[in-house]
Amino acid sequence: MRTMMAQEISEQPDVLARTLDALMPLRSELRELGEGRRHVLLVARGSSDNASLYGRYLMEIHTGRGATSAAPSLVTHYEVDRDLGDTLVVSVSQSGETTEIVRTQAWAAERGARTIAITNAASSTLASDAHVALVTPAGTERAVPATKSYTSQLAAIAVVADALGIRAGTLEPPLRRVPDEVARLLEQRHGVDEAVAVLATAGSTLVSGRGLVFGTSLEVALKLEETCLRPVLGLSYADLRHGPIAVVDAGVAAVLVAAEDGPMTAGVTKLVGQLRELGARTIALGGDADLKAACELVVAGPDLPELVAPLALIVPAQLIVESLARTLGLSPDAPRGLAKVTESDPDS
Amino acid sequence: MRTMMAQEISEQPDVLARTLDALMPLRSELRELGEGRRHVLLVARGSSDNASLYGRYLMEIHTGRGATSAAPSLVTHYEVDRDLGDTLVVSVSQSGETTEIVRTQAWAAERGARTIAITNAASSTLASDAHVALVTPAGTERAVPATKSYTSQLAAIAVVADALGIRAGTLEPPLRRVPDEVARLLEQRHGVDEAVAVLATAGSTLVSGRGLVFGTSLEVALKLEETCLRPVLGLSYADLRHGPIAVVDAGVAAVLVAAEDGPMTAGVTKLVGQLRELGARTIALGGDADLKAACELVVAGPDLPELVAPLALIVPAQLIVESLARTLGLSPDAPRGLAKVTESDPDS
Repeated sequence: MRTMMAQEISEQPDVLARTLDALMPLRSELRELGEGRRHVLLVARGSSDNASLYGRYLMEIHTGRGATSAAPSLVTHYEVDRDLGDTLVVSVSQSGETTEIVRTQAWAAERGARTIAITNAASSTLASDAHVALVTPAGTERAVPATKSYTSQLAAIAVVADALGIRAGTLEPPLRRVPDEVARLLEQRHGVDEAVAVLATAGSTLVSGRGLVFGTSLEVALKLEETCLRPVLGLSYADLRHGPIAVVDAGVAAVLVAAEDGPMTAGVTKLVGQLRELGARTIALGGDADLKAACELVVAGPDLPELVAPLALIVPAQLIVESLARTLGLSPDAPRGLAKVTESDPDS
Repeated sequence: MRTMMAQEISEQPDVLARTLDALMPLRSELRELGEGRRHVLLVARGSSDNASLYGRYLMEIHTGRGATSAAPSLVTHYEVDRDLGDTLVVSVSQSGETTEIVRTQAWAAERGARTIAITNAASSTLASDAHVALVTPAGTERAVPATKSYTSQLAAIAVVADALGIRAGTLEPPLRRVPDEVARLLEQRHGVDEAVAVLATAGSTLVSGRGLVFGTSLEVALKLEETCLRPVLGLSYADLRHGPIAVVDAGVAAVLVAAEDGPMTAGVTKLVGQLRELGARTIALGGDADLKAACELVVAGPDLPELVAPLALIVPAQLIVESLARTLGLSPDAPRGLAKVTESDPDS
């Protein structure tokens, strides 16, 4: 029987197409909202925070604004107070009800921020409270691991960036190609089974990517941990070389995450040589010809420019996670110790 | 024979006292530099980046500014361009020569930022290029793991926050108590040997802390990895509850990091119950009476308010790391695969 996670993974081409159709028309409203706002503050937790990390890089690179991920505890626990009249807040929450995200958005609005909510629940508090709500039409997600809700969040973030962009509208053509690319990756599953075999026998796993795909690498790491119960390091390759590479040995399987183009592929390829010398197994998730040639195993990524590649690059990793969990005798739909709506208790 | 790391750990009361003496007089200059700058951007890598994370929270909480850690790749690889006329940049590098940090500081200054360099090398490029250089008198650090250079960076960051603070000067009295507190912790070593025994036999280690001590918990995790070659998760407890707690079982030793006071101790104490139910060994590093009572083992932290506690809270962890490395038959001074000056190659 097909798992709910497998089912939800397979819905993504359709969900992504509908997300773009629903949100693209809001760009002029978003552009107006972002007028004169030089800073973007992204508010999220868990998988949504990994989606926000893509947003952080995309906003800086594509819109010329400073962007950062909020630390919600500054609001919920330290009660900081500052003027946010120069800031656009983008809150990301599948349920739209995560208490600390709702509270942080309200805190920001009270201090002059303009607010955008990205959520899968049209009638949620987060959506109702926001200046503009971007509701993703992902439908109910029944499996605990976020899949279609995560990629539709990425699509919503990309629409915001396209609206605010220095050259507004230029992201639309590659974004429109995403659903077909996702469908192709789901159909071909290139390298997925081979990667599952390597990861199933590895002592530990390391996931590394930098820049626009840093969030993707953290999301792959989180999914391997929460769904496959594997302790995983999720670090950018720059941080990796500052210390944790010391723990790499022959028991490690390393997943190197990269787009097909962009300024990051050369550095991640260079890291592969170091990892192989230390005895690690190496798996490319995406990447250019050089990265693919350097790694022992290749999981094919999308044929998309780096700016939008994360929307599809996570998909083969979702296939790996779903299959690896089953291989390990686990349920991909309901991993140990996790409930669907997770809250960081704001009062504790 | 005493290791270099042990020697350098023991120098910290003196180094911290001299750092405060050297830098406190620069506060009026720092205050002037920060005038009208509503945003703080911290630029660092590795241990210095963990120090910067303390700076991020401290600047937000104590100075009413927005603060964030830079992603150097945005400058070195993506060449983003934006106006930094509202920003104060604080760069942190022990050597003052890490290429990407030097380049990011120069990039920021060209775009209107005012710049503060925190470095251990008076004649370094980073110090020469900055509007104000805060040179820490830590002396040569010969062991690879940063100890006295790290705590002196924290002291320099606290001096900046004190200068920029809404109530400037209020951090000075607790800061002046830090050297004696560090000396006391070094003398008493309360719980250190017991923690080493637990960590030496644990299958894996988890380090968790949030808010002002989040950077401390990442630094503890980094040191356990780079010096003791233990794969470690370093996560805030909020993120932990969003997924990775799934991997916790009886093979895990969890280090819970907290100050004696502040809004974070209750939440971390609540987490302990969950961790113990999953079978994990629990070690408090600092904390209030409730956290200490909840954990199986207590490593005593400093008697200092949360705002400055991180300067001393790391010290018992350094003692643990130094001793654990020797217990495991490793050299604390020269861990496998690491050189003292680490650079993230900016061109690759």
